[in-house]
Amino acid sequence: MIYPGPVAKLVEELEKLPGVGPRTAQRLAFHLLKVPKEEALALAKAIVEAREKVSHCSRCFNLAEGELCEYCSDPRRDTKVICVVERPQDIVALEKTGEHRGLYHVLGGAISPIDGIGPDDLRIRELLERVRQEGAVELIVATNPRVEGEATALYIADLFRPLGVRVTRIASGLPVGGDLEYADEITLGRALRGRREI
Amino acid sequence: MIYPGPVAKLVEELEKLPGVGPRTAQRLAFHLLKVPKEEALALAKAIVEAREKVSHCSRCFNLAEGELCEYCSDPRRDTKVICVVERPQDIVALEKTGEHRGLYHVLGGAISPIDGIGPDDLRIRELLERVRQEGAVELIVATNPRVEGEATALYIADLFRPLGVRVTRIASGLPVGGDLEYADEITLGRALRGRREI
Repeated sequence: MIYPGPVAKLVEELEKLPGVGPRTAQRLAFHLLKVPKEEALALAKAIVEAREKVSHCSRCFNLAEGELCEYCSDPRRDTKVICVVERPQDIVALEKTGEHRGLYHVLGGAISPIDGIGPDDLRIRELLERVRQEGAVELIVATNPRVEGEATALYIADLFRPLGVRVTRIASGLPVGGDLEYADEITLGRALRGRREI
Repeated sequence: MIYPGPVAKLVEELEKLPGVGPRTAQRLAFHLLKVPKEEALALAKAIVEAREKVSHCSRCFNLAEGELCEYCSDPRRDTKVICVVERPQDIVALEKTGEHRGLYHVLGGAISPIDGIGPDDLRIRELLERVRQEGAVELIVATNPRVEGEATALYIADLFRPLGVRVTRIASGLPVGGDLEYADEITLGRALRGRREI
């Protein structure tokens, strides 16, 4: 044994974090052993509190401290337009734009046959139920612009269009500040197809 | 507020870790919210246990679960040769070589006037006390081969040589597998000066 048991255990648990290898885990462990005790314990407490107090919104599955998330419990939001995302953190990115005044729905991932994730593994049934009850008129599908996200968007469009719900997809194209010369051909092709009158 | 309070707090605490910026902290926080609850709580518990159960060895200031670290409490180690290091993790690296059978002494850093760290901020007084009591015959100074580590090594040499203690310094030179072409001139200069008969 090279480290005292509790240190080895801490390194082991830190290694489970994404992007943290053995060396980083060791560095983080020694950091946590060196800082004032209160600082290390504050992190431990924050982890416990986040897991004890935060759960999923019963309506949209965003993170929420209570029964409903801050958007679902905000009466000023437009309940007729639902933006469908893969993960709660996507909502954070979308809210920063200030462009969406409707609600959200977190699928919990995207359709990916390779990973064994089908429509039934996502919260699509819950979305169907919700649209029926709340009478949403538009679903903005904001899944990631990758194969899985596109497949999910198509699946949702096929499912909801027959119900008279408008299903839209966020635009793909060149990022603002991007450079035509360095854009990949798929992105550039989409930018061309998605061209708009100026 | 974009995140529920406890999530924002978790992100804030994670950001205090070395090498963890706002984006990484957010990614780690969402990871800890997504994994099984036991896994997240296991990390919190490991932090608490490491801080509750691990302290410093009263003799060499290495990390220790009890009064003495595993090396100081090992009767097979040679108490006459003390390897002086900056931090406990340096001991881990040295132990992997299997070359040192003596004990250690952790200074807690290196002399660095720019950072306001002088000899009195390090555990040099404790080393002096220890050498007097235990009668060590050699101090192997294994501080890092940087300006601060060299200054510390020189300070220790000046302090202990008059007491009749042999003070040695770990060798600097080309790393094994290294390439002369890409070696910096200071390292190569040291490799030349430190040349040995073959």
